Amino acid sequence: MGLYEIKGGVCAPVGFKAGGIHCGIRKNKTKKDFALIVSDVKASAAGVYTTNLVKGAPVTVTKQHLSDGYAQAIICNSGNANTCNSDGIEIADAMCGLVEKVSGISAEDVIVASTGVIGQKLDIEPMANGIEELYASLGDNSADANEAIMTTDTVQKTVAVQFILDGQVCRIGGIAKGIGMVCPNMATNLIFLTSDVAISPKMLQTALSEDVKASFNMISVDGDQSTNDTCCILANGLAGNTPIDSDCADYRTFLKALHYCTVKLSKMIAKDGEGATKLIECNVKGAKSAKMAKTVAKTVIKSSLVKAAMFGADANWGRVLCAIGYSGEKIDPLKIDLDFKSKKGNLPVCRNGYGVEFSEELAKKILSEDEVKININLNLGSCSAVAWGCDLTYDYVKINGDYRT
Amino acid sequence: MGLYEIKGGVCAPVGFKAGGIHCGIRKNKTKKDFALIVSDVKASAAGVYTTNLVKGAPVTVTKQHLSDGYAQAIICNSGNANTCNSDGIEIADAMCGLVEKVSGISAEDVIVASTGVIGQKLDIEPMANGIEELYASLGDNSADANEAIMTTDTVQKTVAVQFILDGQVCRIGGIAKGIGMVCPNMATNLIFLTSDVAISPKMLQTALSEDVKASFNMISVDGDQSTNDTCCILANGLAGNTPIDSDCADYRTFLKALHYCTVKLSKMIAKDGEGATKLIECNVKGAKSAKMAKTVAKTVIKSSLVKAAMFGADANWGRVLCAIGYSGEKIDPLKIDLDFKSKKGNLPVCRNGYGVEFSEELAKKILSEDEVKININLNLGSCSAVAWGCDLTYDYVKINGDYRT
Repeated sequence: MGLYEIKGGVCAPVGFKAGGIHCGIRKNKTKKDFALIVSDVKASAAGVYTTNLVKGAPVTVTKQHLSDGYAQAIICNSGNANTCNSDGIEIADAMCGLVEKVSGISAEDVIVASTGVIGQKLDIEPMANGIEELYASLGDNSADANEAIMTTDTVQKTVAVQFILDGQVCRIGGIAKGIGMVCPNMATNLIFLTSDVAISPKMLQTALSEDVKASFNMISVDGDQSTNDTCCILANGLAGNTPIDSDCADYRTFLKALHYCTVKLSKMIAKDGEGATKLIECNVKGAKSAKMAKTVAKTVIKSSLVKAAMFGADANWGRVLCAIGYSGEKIDPLKIDLDFKSKKGNLPVCRNGYGVEFSEELAKKILSEDEVKININLNLGSCSAVAWGCDLTYDYVKINGDYRT
Repeated sequence: MGLYEIKGGVCAPVGFKAGGIHCGIRKNKTKKDFALIVSDVKASAAGVYTTNLVKGAPVTVTKQHLSDGYAQAIICNSGNANTCNSDGIEIADAMCGLVEKVSGISAEDVIVASTGVIGQKLDIEPMANGIEELYASLGDNSADANEAIMTTDTVQKTVAVQFILDGQVCRIGGIAKGIGMVCPNMATNLIFLTSDVAISPKMLQTALSEDVKASFNMISVDGDQSTNDTCCILANGLAGNTPIDSDCADYRTFLKALHYCTVKLSKMIAKDGEGATKLIECNVKGAKSAKMAKTVAKTVIKSSLVKAAMFGADANWGRVLCAIGYSGEKIDPLKIDLDFKSKKGNLPVCRNGYGVEFSEELAKKILSEDEVKININLNLGSCSAVAWGCDLTYDYVKINGDYRT
């Protein structure tokens, strides 16, 4: 299909500008905390959200605003999740109103998101004072917006690709924040995607909903599903392709490009999990059903004992078997094959449920890499799945032992 | 009912002896690794086991041996779980054979258990060489047996009670090991209970199965369900009460005494979770169903973010709300009341799903205690549940980053 990575993040697609500033929600003045992404024209829009029953007010407001399938801007603050606050909806509405005031874009066409501590009132004042500066900062500044949505993220998570659809050059760009409270189900923390593809709101929503099942929904940092998970995409049609409004070849091409972006962001989120020193990829094959493959992969990725062993580069494969065994899926222990793999080589550690001899030295070498694969064959069928996670480290505990202060 | 704690652990009931030695499974010669508990006469016996599909060989053998409802001895080693080994059953059978050889008790009447690393062959030789010494060590030595079943446990977990049944003084004693890979479903790691009550095997199994639902099944240290969870009870009838063979008043009295013991052991296991500095008790009330109450309590106890906040004595109550929200139960966020409580006082932090003002100083004081309660009222019904867990600390990561070496 001719898919290339390009620069520019959410500003890579035609007709998108982004900006980010420090407005004062955070005490640390060197850290941006207020982001804006704007399309030149109204765009098809789709979203997937946390399924946590304790939801951030911005999630509720964004869902309302996307109910007609269109939007034109994304406003987001970090430092406060605007969740479990009695005035949460009011504040989220006010944030959209600020965008309308400076840009003329209807508040109803604004996607709003917040991330940070839960249960503390979010003051509108710093944002009201900062909105003019934020609007003035709009340009080819995806990195500024990315910085402004980060919390304890240590690296920016950004992607952009270019591909051909209907003879036209098209693009998708994205930025994400991840870190803690990451175990999405429908979407993970905050992910904002942009595209210049022409596509109907219905097909855009179908694409996003299908995509997240095998991307963001397959990550776990700590098994805690956030209250504010939001993944939104705007597609403004400025690439000039014939609009996609059915499950056609062009739709499949778009879906592939979208999946490239979301998997890349998923891996970045997992690798930068709070305190993490490495990315763990769990590949499950030979499952009887897609559900079995996914459940086993996620159970292994979420196991605290597997995660701690990965931190210590300890080939304690019994913990992987143990996690497979309590996944709830009807696996057959005596059919399981298990290998650890990284750039340094491949290490079979278990065949038919029993341990095989291996070199501890090679195991240490393989598991000391910053990207490690746990490859499982259940030998029961032909379904497979991939999940991404990270190791459990001292720093996870340190970061989360005193997050609020 | 007149229930008193007494000394003696598993040797407190009439007609039980216990012993423990170092036989050489562990390299550290100062740590006992081989335990034996014997009843003078054949006893009613019941067990509950891990539901993990990857099961230790000893679990399979013990289930077979208890199928007739009777047993007379318990043999257990630490340092190796005898799990995922092709010769596992053979070795577990051989362990029971060793007991028969020295004591004359039929191998079929022996409960066998192993705990330690998974996937390494368990050598019978040190045990074969040590069995005479172990048998000779039998006496009023519950603490020796307790030490021998410990892995990374830092304290012994033991209990014994005395109560009156049918005019006779009766006793129940117990020892347990807990620590990591603790998130039982049917039983937790290893728990051996003894009693001199006369009770039919059927009623003993009914009592144990009913009991664990509200004791060991409500603990989580790290959400990982062990492959070797085994909780067994022997009741030898030497107290001389009229045998319990139906759901009568005496049965209820026995159940209460049993529950006292199992809850006490559950709390000890949770408090001594790997690396833990404190016991966390989550009380849920106002639930629509018992299932809702249990699921919410266990979800909160298992949340890595809640556990890390407790370690930091940080009153980050939003994380508790977040965990309640993703529990999968249909709670109403706007009805939730939440308090933190310890010896230092009670702190309301959330009413009707929204935060209330509180003193950070008092919060710190309350959460710095070594036993902390998270009290949740869902305000939806009249069902309640209690779960026990511990905080997530640097030491959990340290202990589990390099467990095998």
